[in-house]
Amino acid sequence: MVQPLRLGLAGLGTVGIGVVKIVQQHADLITARTGRPVVITAVSARDRTKNRDADLSAYAWETDPVALAQREDVDVFVEVMGGHEGAAKAATEAAIAAGKDVVTANKALLAHHGQTLAEAAEAAGRVIRFEAAVAGGIPVIKALTEGLAGNRITRVMGVMNGTCNYILTRMQNAGLPYETVFEEARQLGYLEADPNLDVGGIDAGHKLSLLAAIAFGTRVAFDAVELEGIGNVSIEDIELADDMGYHIKLLGVAQMSGRGLEQRMTPCLVPAESPFGQLQGGTNMVMLEGDSVGQIVLRGPGAGEGPTASAVMSDVIDIARGLRLPTFGRPAATLVPAVPAKAATPAPYYLRMTLLDKPGALAKIATCLGEAGISIDQMRQINQPGEEDDDAIVIFVTHKAAPADVAHALTSFAQTGVLVGQPVAIRIEEL
Amino acid sequence: MVQPLRLGLAGLGTVGIGVVKIVQQHADLITARTGRPVVITAVSARDRTKNRDADLSAYAWETDPVALAQREDVDVFVEVMGGHEGAAKAATEAAIAAGKDVVTANKALLAHHGQTLAEAAEAAGRVIRFEAAVAGGIPVIKALTEGLAGNRITRVMGVMNGTCNYILTRMQNAGLPYETVFEEARQLGYLEADPNLDVGGIDAGHKLSLLAAIAFGTRVAFDAVELEGIGNVSIEDIELADDMGYHIKLLGVAQMSGRGLEQRMTPCLVPAESPFGQLQGGTNMVMLEGDSVGQIVLRGPGAGEGPTASAVMSDVIDIARGLRLPTFGRPAATLVPAVPAKAATPAPYYLRMTLLDKPGALAKIATCLGEAGISIDQMRQINQPGEEDDDAIVIFVTHKAAPADVAHALTSFAQTGVLVGQPVAIRIEEL
Repeated sequence: MVQPLRLGLAGLGTVGIGVVKIVQQHADLITARTGRPVVITAVSARDRTKNRDADLSAYAWETDPVALAQREDVDVFVEVMGGHEGAAKAATEAAIAAGKDVVTANKALLAHHGQTLAEAAEAAGRVIRFEAAVAGGIPVIKALTEGLAGNRITRVMGVMNGTCNYILTRMQNAGLPYETVFEEARQLGYLEADPNLDVGGIDAGHKLSLLAAIAFGTRVAFDAVELEGIGNVSIEDIELADDMGYHIKLLGVAQMSGRGLEQRMTPCLVPAESPFGQLQGGTNMVMLEGDSVGQIVLRGPGAGEGPTASAVMSDVIDIARGLRLPTFGRPAATLVPAVPAKAATPAPYYLRMTLLDKPGALAKIATCLGEAGISIDQMRQINQPGEEDDDAIVIFVTHKAAPADVAHALTSFAQTGVLVGQPVAIRIEEL
Repeated sequence: MVQPLRLGLAGLGTVGIGVVKIVQQHADLITARTGRPVVITAVSARDRTKNRDADLSAYAWETDPVALAQREDVDVFVEVMGGHEGAAKAATEAAIAAGKDVVTANKALLAHHGQTLAEAAEAAGRVIRFEAAVAGGIPVIKALTEGLAGNRITRVMGVMNGTCNYILTRMQNAGLPYETVFEEARQLGYLEADPNLDVGGIDAGHKLSLLAAIAFGTRVAFDAVELEGIGNVSIEDIELADDMGYHIKLLGVAQMSGRGLEQRMTPCLVPAESPFGQLQGGTNMVMLEGDSVGQIVLRGPGAGEGPTASAVMSDVIDIARGLRLPTFGRPAATLVPAVPAKAATPAPYYLRMTLLDKPGALAKIATCLGEAGISIDQMRQINQPGEEDDDAIVIFVTHKAAPADVAHALTSFAQTGVLVGQPVAIRIEEL
């Protein structure tokens, strides 16, 4: 008689209830696929009295997730509470110490404590799995760790925060400013309690740092992610970029080069016709690039009850099937400290500025670019219609330029005396 | 001291040499990821004297792949020869009988003999892995078998023959007829020795039947795949469909419903703006649909040395890591015979016909459609410019209709006496 795999489920929010539903509704299917029943024995959440969309009466209740993690009748601690300190961390540590495997959706916890937790789990002969922590229902951790394991990974790119992509595409499609759409998103319940986790790029940055660790065999280095949120993306830039064949996305890029590890989660221009450019709404997309395989693009729902629970269950089912791997695809003790690149790889840039209506103004700006070693691919001047003496908006798309040279050019623009306000510079990423 | 995992490599064509290169160039990386060296000990191919783009001097040579499969110093038999009878089948059977694991890129072999081979492997405690057999470098077998294992799979769709997609997109982009582009593809070396494997949809049908077995827990039923190649796709239909917002693709669909298992690999219209509609050239794309996760779309190179070798090596590395699963994701003995659906799910159809320039001709056709219970979504009449008495081309896009009703309408069209030549009917698939 095969023993069932017994889950202790910490967290009964959207994702937790999704897990309960799959375990209950697909019991036979899962047993057929794993050869072993998967059952929930105990659950925990802050509020027992809350009305939830699932029958939990068969499960033991723990108020304290640490107690749940330590129960004798739990084989796998499933953590879908969230938060990178406090209860989630304490309970995960307790689970490992008690000899449980861990399945978690908690990107923040692993971005901050992944190395320590992975080392502890491997010392205890236990696994930590986190498919649900990155890109929701897309099996990207598995694709990268296992599916492309024969490749030297050269680059990983991704749109991995559905809320930011919703806001940016809604701005573009409706011609609305950031503040308006942000407020819409808040009212729709799309934002985290701390909205800066979403719109500040932090949540997506957490995910990027986990992918980078797997891709490059480096310790998770969230603090080295260059982070910039979408709060400064203007509807003006979205529309001007669109006119030139680009869309603006909060795009993550992790790449390893002779310079070291680059990790960026910043607003970028991408070609409108590219897979990333065409991504609408809350959908996530990740591109994995390997030296043999080339580019693999994965697309799917990045959040929500069903998709995230699907990812949690894929980890649970791997454990039920006996498929066990180190957290980041190789033993945690062999992960090397990431050496952050001092400067990002050169890229084309989008530059927007407003020039005073003075003779020679454009020539001065062009001279600054030339002196910074930056050559121009496209230029457009947009005069306000109907008013002859108005200031002119000028857009440049440059050829590839080093970020330091772009910064130098921006500084020298300021000294020309022909600019109105601050210029805007946005990196262009091309697949 | 960990024992290396020893590969016997049968087949030294493009894919075989790709495997050699990865094993040689990424030895350290693979050991870091698996904890165990992966080495090639012996190889086989038809012609030893052929000049190959890799150093094979360290490997034992076998002329007979069966002898290779039985060697004492081989743990995993890697079959990249191709062909579903003869040497590939004999050697694979010999490998299993000799207690070896098998990694194969051979979709034809598994489409025809997958059940028998899987049962033999599982009886011997060995695995058969075939990531490289479906969609080249895209880790779609892993995504379906493991990544979405918590889902009841509802549908799988895919463009999985790069040559067909190359031909169809080249026809569309250059406005060239099928015969011209077929000849171009032949000269570029894109076609199999028997081109019907590609353009007849057989190769892609093999792949679809393997995905269906995993998705629905059914025995591989390649003979039940409704197969139609691209040889009858005309440039006229490609251009008319484009005008109405559709592209024509050789699209595979496998779905399980109350009617039974549907498996189709046929030319279809897909919305031009959809992921499948935008797929250009030799790239492959697969959509996996599950009840929890929704739709996951995977895109990547479907053939070639690097991508296919990458997929082969992902299977080899799984074995080196001790990740072992039954061939089709559950024990072969538990796979149930597929019950083919008697009729396909209703879908919208594209209908093109040429009508005689007679009063009431269009009314007669519309009456036939109405009597067959088919309602019309869009209709266009295209008169030849400049000649008043010319026959007219008429295009209908119908609402969803049962295939039997469409067949009935086509029959009754013929009895109206207003048609010139045969009408064309192509199914429309929407994601």
